[in-house]
Amino acid sequence: MSLQSLTTDELSTFKAEQEAAYAALGSAGLSLDITRGKPSPEQLDLSSALLTMPGDDFRSAAGVDTRNYGGLHGLPELREIFAELLGVPVDQLLAADNASLSLMHDTLAFALLHGTPESPTPWAGQDIAFLCPSPGYDRHFALAEHLGFRLIPVDLHEDGPDVAQVRQHAADPAVKGIWIVPTYANPTGAVVSESVAAELAAIETGAPDFRIYWDNAYAVHHLTAERVKTPDILGLASAAGHPNRPLVFASTSKITFAGSGVSFLGGSPENVAWYLGHLGFRTIGPDKVNQLRHARFFGDADGVLAHMERHRAILEPKFAIVERVLSDRLGPHGVASWTQPKGGYFVSLDVTEGTANRVVQLAKDIGLALTPAGSSFPYQTDPRDQNIRVAPTLPSLTDLEAAMEALATCVLLAAAEKAQTP
Amino acid sequence: MSLQSLTTDELSTFKAEQEAAYAALGSAGLSLDITRGKPSPEQLDLSSALLTMPGDDFRSAAGVDTRNYGGLHGLPELREIFAELLGVPVDQLLAADNASLSLMHDTLAFALLHGTPESPTPWAGQDIAFLCPSPGYDRHFALAEHLGFRLIPVDLHEDGPDVAQVRQHAADPAVKGIWIVPTYANPTGAVVSESVAAELAAIETGAPDFRIYWDNAYAVHHLTAERVKTPDILGLASAAGHPNRPLVFASTSKITFAGSGVSFLGGSPENVAWYLGHLGFRTIGPDKVNQLRHARFFGDADGVLAHMERHRAILEPKFAIVERVLSDRLGPHGVASWTQPKGGYFVSLDVTEGTANRVVQLAKDIGLALTPAGSSFPYQTDPRDQNIRVAPTLPSLTDLEAAMEALATCVLLAAAEKAQTP
Repeated sequence: MSLQSLTTDELSTFKAEQEAAYAALGSAGLSLDITRGKPSPEQLDLSSALLTMPGDDFRSAAGVDTRNYGGLHGLPELREIFAELLGVPVDQLLAADNASLSLMHDTLAFALLHGTPESPTPWAGQDIAFLCPSPGYDRHFALAEHLGFRLIPVDLHEDGPDVAQVRQHAADPAVKGIWIVPTYANPTGAVVSESVAAELAAIETGAPDFRIYWDNAYAVHHLTAERVKTPDILGLASAAGHPNRPLVFASTSKITFAGSGVSFLGGSPENVAWYLGHLGFRTIGPDKVNQLRHARFFGDADGVLAHMERHRAILEPKFAIVERVLSDRLGPHGVASWTQPKGGYFVSLDVTEGTANRVVQLAKDIGLALTPAGSSFPYQTDPRDQNIRVAPTLPSLTDLEAAMEALATCVLLAAAEKAQTP
Repeated sequence: MSLQSLTTDELSTFKAEQEAAYAALGSAGLSLDITRGKPSPEQLDLSSALLTMPGDDFRSAAGVDTRNYGGLHGLPELREIFAELLGVPVDQLLAADNASLSLMHDTLAFALLHGTPESPTPWAGQDIAFLCPSPGYDRHFALAEHLGFRLIPVDLHEDGPDVAQVRQHAADPAVKGIWIVPTYANPTGAVVSESVAAELAAIETGAPDFRIYWDNAYAVHHLTAERVKTPDILGLASAAGHPNRPLVFASTSKITFAGSGVSFLGGSPENVAWYLGHLGFRTIGPDKVNQLRHARFFGDADGVLAHMERHRAILEPKFAIVERVLSDRLGPHGVASWTQPKGGYFVSLDVTEGTANRVVQLAKDIGLALTPAGSSFPYQTDPRDQNIRVAPTLPSLTDLEAAMEALATCVLLAAAEKAQTP
């Protein structure tokens, strides 16, 4: 029965029930954590073969000794595999070290220190703003804020950022870019449609070097039998006359080992040359032995997809638990809505407006760690104080179910408190 | 017999002999390369055990799953080993990815974008200069130049940079730092003495955030039985009231695998906190699996030293060849001088003034690749056109001997040409 339709007495009774349930949880001495999108140990075990690779054969397909210096582009055979998966021409895809976040940082740092191909004047010292489809990835927003950019929220729909809002803001030359996780976005699971991607590629922007930071972190991280396809943003942008607009990022962090994977950067030939031109002063090359490990482990693009099916087998039951508990416990009361992602690492839960912070505090007090409310918004501020990001991948099934039950109680209690407030 | 003491006729004869020898080399179809300080395959083989590590036991000493995210400081057990070797307190030493050059780049980028602890104003947009003890490491100078810094050469003596020159230049607030390879410098093998280090630590500088980029790349890379000790620059600077002045860099690039090693950054507690404060926006952590591999492979600091003895066994005969050929072929003619380093990767050869470029060109024309003349100087310009960096580590003994013989012929021919020029 929806909370809104309860009488004052019924609401008091309901609230008392939640308080009792909450008190019981408090006595249970929980210690649960659904804060970060980390792979579980079982998922990491899927890549155990990497731990003894490459073995004695340390030469690349082309005969290069991967143990020595060199090879700024990264290992060709690994780039070929991910070129196919990411839909980026292999000449335009670089393989790097263990973190795509570092590639995002460094491309922005290079733009700040040296300028971009279209703006030889460095960005540093200018007023710069980035568009932040929200809710979105907290580390994107934090990085841009740390670099001194203004963060401008735009709405994120199921098919991508609100194009009208993007168009309006991007007319301002100070707006230099937009963060986008095109496939299975963190945290809503949104997937950018072909038409939205085409519009973003074609929009007239005030800045000649407006950039789409296309962070395809979950390109192959399917949770259903459907393998949702990411739009070819590089092709679309090139066709629209803006070849340098997109920078494509990806990594194996949630494919193999989260701390010891390989990251990828794709872009137009001009952007790739620009990036390498600066990178060459920063390093002599990436860890090619680790790239060789990965190339051998996967074999080919189909090998990656088969590997992701094994991840899915572990993750699908976890997301099913989230859906079941939220549906069973919250569904009847009309106090929340949540996403049913087809891939990725998160469920985005919207609780009763004005109660997200309260829910997180209630949870914390009984030993359930949640991502701080507002984390998915620019400046960590959710204007409606309603969004909570649920990360179900790391805990065991048992712990996850306990966490979700506890979370549901906190959501209901906070909603009841709110409903009683005049 | 010294070239200077020859009669005109004797000089003509001598030159004709060199021309004949050079012509013979030209017919031999050489393909030799002594350009870069790369480890040889035999050296890389010393670390073959890494290629199947860490195996099933992927947990750190503290029980951390190294495969997952986290651990910005790097793996404690590896930091402990190198803290001992580098003389840096372990709390003040970070373990990072595969390239110390990247750490140098990033600390400079952070200073440019955010400022340092003593200069909250970002460096970007300011007139900045760096002192470049010369001859020195080409990539240091290239990085500083790429970042827009002015490069100011200072003399490098056998015991380190010329302190009087450093003192004079550092009085200028635009001078923000100095590059130093304290032990077995690239390319001269110079070792900074205790007293020079103490003076550098204590100098009054115009910039409150003057930095010593103390690149201890060859800390344990001994070529003789003597293990030359690097001065404790952090301790000296702290005692002199400038704890934030030095930033210490090192890596295992020339200990294990040149492309797949681990780098280190040491500094004052304030500098370390400053660096981590920015790094946390760039990455979630380094490749801990690779760090675990290295910690297990070495065992302890003595393990590193024993490993370096095995490198020495491979390298000592190579440096002996360089010394023997230069001594035999050039010694009698008074046309060149060269270093006899106690460690590191290079021999610095000073040929007849005004002929280094000619020597490199002569060598190239007969199939011997040398580092471009001037590489070891700011703006790639050797004011005396006399320095050539010899990198003997990569070639086989046979190739190295052939390369040195060819080089000697080119040096003698260029000297004879020069002596004939009015």
